[in-house]
Amino acid sequence: MKELIVKNENKILLIVLDGLGGLPINGKTELETAKTPNLDELTRKSELGLTISVDYGITPGSGPGHLAIFGYDPLEIKIGRGVLEALGLGLRLEENTLAIRGNFATFKDGKIISRRAGRISSEENRRLCEKLRREIKYIKDYEIEFHSGIEHRFVVLIKGKDLSEEIKETDPQKDGLPPYLPEPLSEEGKKTSEILKILIERGREVLKEEKEANYFLLRGYSKVPKVENFCEKYQLKSLAIATYPMYKGIASLIGMDVVKSSLNSWEEEIEELKRNYQSYDFFYLHFKEIDTAGEDGDFEKKVLLIEKFDSLLPEILKLNFSVIAITSDHSTPALLKSHSWHPSPFLLYSPFSRNNEKVKFCEKNCQKGSLGVFKAQKILPLLLAYSLRLKKFGA
Amino acid sequence: MKELIVKNENKILLIVLDGLGGLPINGKTELETAKTPNLDELTRKSELGLTISVDYGITPGSGPGHLAIFGYDPLEIKIGRGVLEALGLGLRLEENTLAIRGNFATFKDGKIISRRAGRISSEENRRLCEKLRREIKYIKDYEIEFHSGIEHRFVVLIKGKDLSEEIKETDPQKDGLPPYLPEPLSEEGKKTSEILKILIERGREVLKEEKEANYFLLRGYSKVPKVENFCEKYQLKSLAIATYPMYKGIASLIGMDVVKSSLNSWEEEIEELKRNYQSYDFFYLHFKEIDTAGEDGDFEKKVLLIEKFDSLLPEILKLNFSVIAITSDHSTPALLKSHSWHPSPFLLYSPFSRNNEKVKFCEKNCQKGSLGVFKAQKILPLLLAYSLRLKKFGA
Repeated sequence: MKELIVKNENKILLIVLDGLGGLPINGKTELETAKTPNLDELTRKSELGLTISVDYGITPGSGPGHLAIFGYDPLEIKIGRGVLEALGLGLRLEENTLAIRGNFATFKDGKIISRRAGRISSEENRRLCEKLRREIKYIKDYEIEFHSGIEHRFVVLIKGKDLSEEIKETDPQKDGLPPYLPEPLSEEGKKTSEILKILIERGREVLKEEKEANYFLLRGYSKVPKVENFCEKYQLKSLAIATYPMYKGIASLIGMDVVKSSLNSWEEEIEELKRNYQSYDFFYLHFKEIDTAGEDGDFEKKVLLIEKFDSLLPEILKLNFSVIAITSDHSTPALLKSHSWHPSPFLLYSPFSRNNEKVKFCEKNCQKGSLGVFKAQKILPLLLAYSLRLKKFGA
Repeated sequence: MKELIVKNENKILLIVLDGLGGLPINGKTELETAKTPNLDELTRKSELGLTISVDYGITPGSGPGHLAIFGYDPLEIKIGRGVLEALGLGLRLEENTLAIRGNFATFKDGKIISRRAGRISSEENRRLCEKLRREIKYIKDYEIEFHSGIEHRFVVLIKGKDLSEEIKETDPQKDGLPPYLPEPLSEEGKKTSEILKILIERGREVLKEEKEANYFLLRGYSKVPKVENFCEKYQLKSLAIATYPMYKGIASLIGMDVVKSSLNSWEEEIEELKRNYQSYDFFYLHFKEIDTAGEDGDFEKKVLLIEKFDSLLPEILKLNFSVIAITSDHSTPALLKSHSWHPSPFLLYSPFSRNNEKVKFCEKNCQKGSLGVFKAQKILPLLLAYSLRLKKFGA
């Protein structure tokens, strides 16, 4: 496809309303329930469809969901748990870094008696990581970093050459069992295994006076995946605007510029969009809270947030984008209180759109839409086409 | 699939209304605007869908568009520019032939000062090709042919063994630059490169007295792709009926019989269809002008041509085909004045159709149709199925 791409000035906006798709409660989904006059007006000038991020029946995590939306094969490129946790903490990862998800735990008589150290507080977590940081800076030539997460969760970064993901996770997955050792799972993992064994021993030494968190478990060993740069792949100078570190992290991982300043509301995100409008070709605008409401099972709140987005839409439309897509990386029905496998509603506004019926933007109308049910990986090719950036294929 | 095919007497007609799909102007597409009572009546007894020839967002050229309709993967089988030009001139290509697209050009002081020799007339072109033909018949053991096209365009055929497409195009793509030499792009291209260098030198010698067309540029080096024979692949004795040489050429390339006499109107094409009805299983009937109207941005003319087709339809229906499909190889919206990536309307008439609603044949109803949005490569399997030529798969 790369050979077909031409450059032009047309600006593209991809809005991800995280977890948008829903399921009916009392006969209507969240989108069907919400009053969305502005979205409905836009829908009239848009192509509709439903997107599948990974495959039929597969519930995508945020990593695979976003990779698919950005045109990558989420089965090919894996963002490991450690990397995802690190991105979620806003850490920048480089090539020679192994990221590991850590849990503080309670160890007694050779066994893990609490895999979460009794769910210690985040404050306690910060104290413990600070202590570890002070005492463990290097193992052999490898730089070691500890970064606090929420409650018992933290991230270890190991920096140096030839690190491997091929290591056994140490979490026994059940209280009352001994922890595993970080044994190598292949020849390649041997060196990393040695470092991790030392890390665990030195960690025990540092934490030996702690009552609850006197041990830690390691899992999700992962390095930054090798990904084709998004801006080169699509020949688009691209900016990501998001409030949550994880989404900034994923965008940064694939090579987008990311608004660095900390944004605290949708309004602030839209201000950033305006400020940067002239400087980029492509904008990824992520709105998180709709997903959170879904995860909380709060149908009403999800409806209100969709309505809030609708009220902000005119401000976005003023900017005169050539192409606007609105979709989500996965559905999060309040009914399920979790991500789900249901395809995501997808809207593509463009002057070259076939649709001109009076319809509401909702799952049902999307499923009848001109784009049908299709793979989220096709979104970027479509955005290029509708922004007139793709030459004819073949004569 | 081949193992499932059974033979029978049911006759299949595939009508390609080139460039049929459109976009709305003042709220309606060309198809939606056209009054098509006969098509609408047929639609009532047909399955509807939208077809994608290459992929989401990809605008197909005529070559890939038709390959897809005929059930071939257009990403796998490429019809090069030279071959397509040759087919467009009605030339028959054999296996050991390299087809090249030529442009007459003006060369001065080491540079190309006009890449189109000031757009010389087609008549002038014929005189020049005749001159070249007289002087250059062979280079080494290779037979050389020159065939005039329109204005500055012509086709060179080189016939002989081990010819290669791996050659640098000589067109500098901009006036005022020196032409490139046809250097080999790989080891494989060496021999062909030598022949082409001699061809260019001898051409300069022949054309040296010409004021404008004293040079030619070469590009689109291509050989006939190896393609599984259509009639064998589907076990259908097949006939192509078209007015334009390019479409006859593509059909001939995949092994269909082609009506050889020059046809000058849709009415003449339909006469051919009647004449050959008893002798074939499968008919590919190509109507070109709807695409041309789209390319010209002439919405009204496109509408009138669709209405003209509608008025001819009853004549076709009299023939009692078991299965009739009506579609296009790509959309050509008057709004865009070019081929586009929008899926093509698709209608499949058969007594074994699920649809029986009163609907108009248009993009919107197709998108809601029983076949959904699907790959054009699936058209032939569908035609086989609806003509009861496919056995059950598995027990």
